[in-house]
Order: sequence, then C-alpha cells, then structure tokens
Amino acid sequence: MKLYDFTLAPNPRRVRMFLAEKGIDVPMAQVNTREMEQFADWYQKIVPQGIVPALELDDGTIITESVAICRYFEEVQPDPPLMGTDAADKAVVEMWNRRAELQGIGAVGDALRNGLPMFEDRAIAGIASGIPQIPELAARGRAAFLRFLDDMDRRLADSPFIAGKRFTIADITVFVGIDTAKRVEMEVPDHCTNVKRWYAEIAARPSAAA
Amino acid sequence: MKLYDFTLAPNPRRVRMFLAEKGIDVPMAQVNTREMEQFADWYQKIVPQGIVPALELDDGTIITESVAICRYFEEVQPDPPLMGTDAADKAVVEMWNRRAELQGIGAVGDALRNGLPMFEDRAIAGIASGIPQIPELAARGRAAFLRFLDDMDRRLADSPFIAGKRFTIADITVFVGIDTAKRVEMEVPDHCTNVKRWYAEIAARPSAAA
Repeated sequence: MKLYDFTLAPNPRRVRMFLAEKGIDVPMAQVNTREMEQFADWYQKIVPQGIVPALELDDGTIITESVAICRYFEEVQPDPPLMGTDAADKAVVEMWNRRAELQGIGAVGDALRNGLPMFEDRAIAGIASGIPQIPELAARGRAAFLRFLDDMDRRLADSPFIAGKRFTIADITVFVGIDTAKRVEMEVPDHCTNVKRWYAEIAARPSAAA
Repeated sequence: MKLYDFTLAPNPRRVRMFLAEKGIDVPMAQVNTREMEQFADWYQKIVPQGIVPALELDDGTIITESVAICRYFEEVQPDPPLMGTDAADKAVVEMWNRRAELQGIGAVGDALRNGLPMFEDRAIAGIASGIPQIPELAARGRAAFLRFLDDMDRRLADSPFIAGKRFTIADITVFVGIDTAKRVEMEVPDHCTNVKRWYAEIAARPSAAA
C-alpha cells in the first residue's frame, strides 16, 4: 500500500489527519504539485487524473478523492469512528462533511484556484493548462466562505464539534479549509467566537500536525 | 419519515432513483422550487438551508445532501448494495461518484445556475437573491462536462457500469447529470458510443422513471 501525498497541499492533509486520528501508518510518496510533478510521466502512469492524494492498494487498485480514501480506512478500521456510527449518524456526518466541502473548502478552492498567480491558466485541479482563472468566481468563493463561517459559528454555539458530540471527518474538512484560506489572506472573523474556540481545540489535537 | 422532494429538480431525482433501486417506499412532500417554495416560511422552519431533497426522520432529525440521504438508506437496507460491498469496493464507488459529482453533475450545475434566466441573481442553490451569474463559469462548466463525457466514454469501454461490474449510485449521478444537461441544450456527443450504450441501458431500468 502507498499513499501519494504532498505535504503542502490541503487535500492530502485531510487524509493525513484522518489517518493520525485512527493511528494508522501508511507508507507515503511525495508528489510535488508546486513543481507540477502530478503531470510528470511517472505519476500520470499511476494517476492519470493528475491529482493528490491517491491511494495505491496492494492489488494495484488506485483510489483518488480524499473522502473515498478516508472511507477505505474507516471500513478497514472502524475505531475510532470518524464517519458516523449508526445509519442516522453516518448520514448526519456525511451531510456536515458535504456542506463543509461545498460551502467551505470548496469555496476556498474557488478563491485560491481563481485568485493565486500560481494557478494562472490552470484554474481546475488536474488540468495542466488552458483553464483561465475567473476573478468573479474567486470573489464569489471568498464571500461564500465568510457566509459558511457564520453558519459554522451558529452551529458551534450548540455543538462541541461540527457534526455533533464527537470529532469526525467534518471537523477535519472545516479545519483544513480554514488553514487553506490563509493562503488567500482570509482569517476567521473576530465575531465568530465559537469557531475560534473550536479551531483552538482542533489545532491542539496531535493529528493537526500530521 | 418524510422526504421533501421536487419532481422536476435533478438532485431529488437521484434520491428517488436510489430508493426505487432498493425498493423502498418513503412518504414524500413536494417543494416547488420553480415557485421558490424552498424559501417559504413553512419550509425554512424545517430546512433553513432552502434546498431539496431533505429527509426528515421520525425523531425530527433533518438530513440534507442527496448522497447523505442515500447513505442513510444504504445503511438501513444494504441490499442491493449501491454504495459498494467491501472496503475497497466502497472506496472505488465513492471515488467514481465524487468524480461524477465534481466533473459531471457539478459542471452541469455551473452551466445551469450561471446560464439559465430563471437563476438570474441566485446562482448558488439555497440563496434567494444577491448571487449574480458568472457567464464564464457557465462556459467553463459546459466544457468540463464535455471532457467528463469523454472520460466516461473511455471508462465505459472497459466497464459495464461507471464504478465496475455492478449498478451503483455513481450510475445514478452520471445519468441524472446527462438528463439535466439537456436543460442547457447539451447532449451526449455522437462519438461517445460507450456512453450512449450505457445510457440506453440505464434509461431502460424501472428506476429511471422514478
């Protein structure tokens, strides 16, 4: 088994945090996306989608998509549960994680890919060129992320963690989203006191350093 | 239990197809999003996110996000499995379904929300106004969807279904994506013969009429 990772990219970090919370050790190989290594021949042969993270199973099966990789590990090692316990809880965790993706880390992604000079002409992950940035989409992403933080602040007024009483994958997604937003000079606003309390707690977990 | 549905909207259809494949009957209530009923007081009290579908469990828990709703039913009734069998298969299905969401139905969504006059000033689902359309994003979504269909055509040259040998939720996502694309005058190109073969097979399943 091998996890194709890049320490500086946000989505691989989601998987590393997930593995750290589970206490699972997986051999890793670095794919330096800042040097466009995801488009190098050696990696394209393994992952033609040109994205990280990717998990290679022992039978050669390749799994891309961070949450799909997490799903694999949740199934092989259910404890501690990070994607829910019974049917209703699994659905609730999935709901919060998807909100955190669509409105949180996804909105940050829109801001980043359409705003940072390093993504000029490649505003969609996995495509090496020919996708011009859309400045209006960067602005829309920034506004959406601020709305999302306000939503999360209301949520965290009632709930210790994003999806309820237990730390889950949804906390990882929101946490990495907030850290990624710093790359486009966005911070949690001061009025989001519940988010700030929760962020400090998550940042203190050993998995945050993964 | 109650499923808040709208017959003409794409995401509720994904859930209806999923339920039909499982043979599960759920009481439904219509929320006419063409008349902005998702923003009506009665629905906002239940689903402040202003989106369909939403599932209300008997204890009052509300589940939004189509795939989270499907996850609930997959857990309470695993047969037939539509989200994978063992750990590796579940991860593979989730990977294909996420690709189908990001690059398929998500790209169509970008084209639709940023292109159709009915979504003028509300280009993000769940927000009633103040989100102007971005024509460049509609164009980017159209191009992305065509790339996605080419990818699926290569995939379906080797595989009977999107995620492998068995019909899964990923087939539902791609199928509803293709049908939704018709609303912005996009059809499967003639050269995508594998997609066309597969589409005809899915359309012949009783669940396609759900």
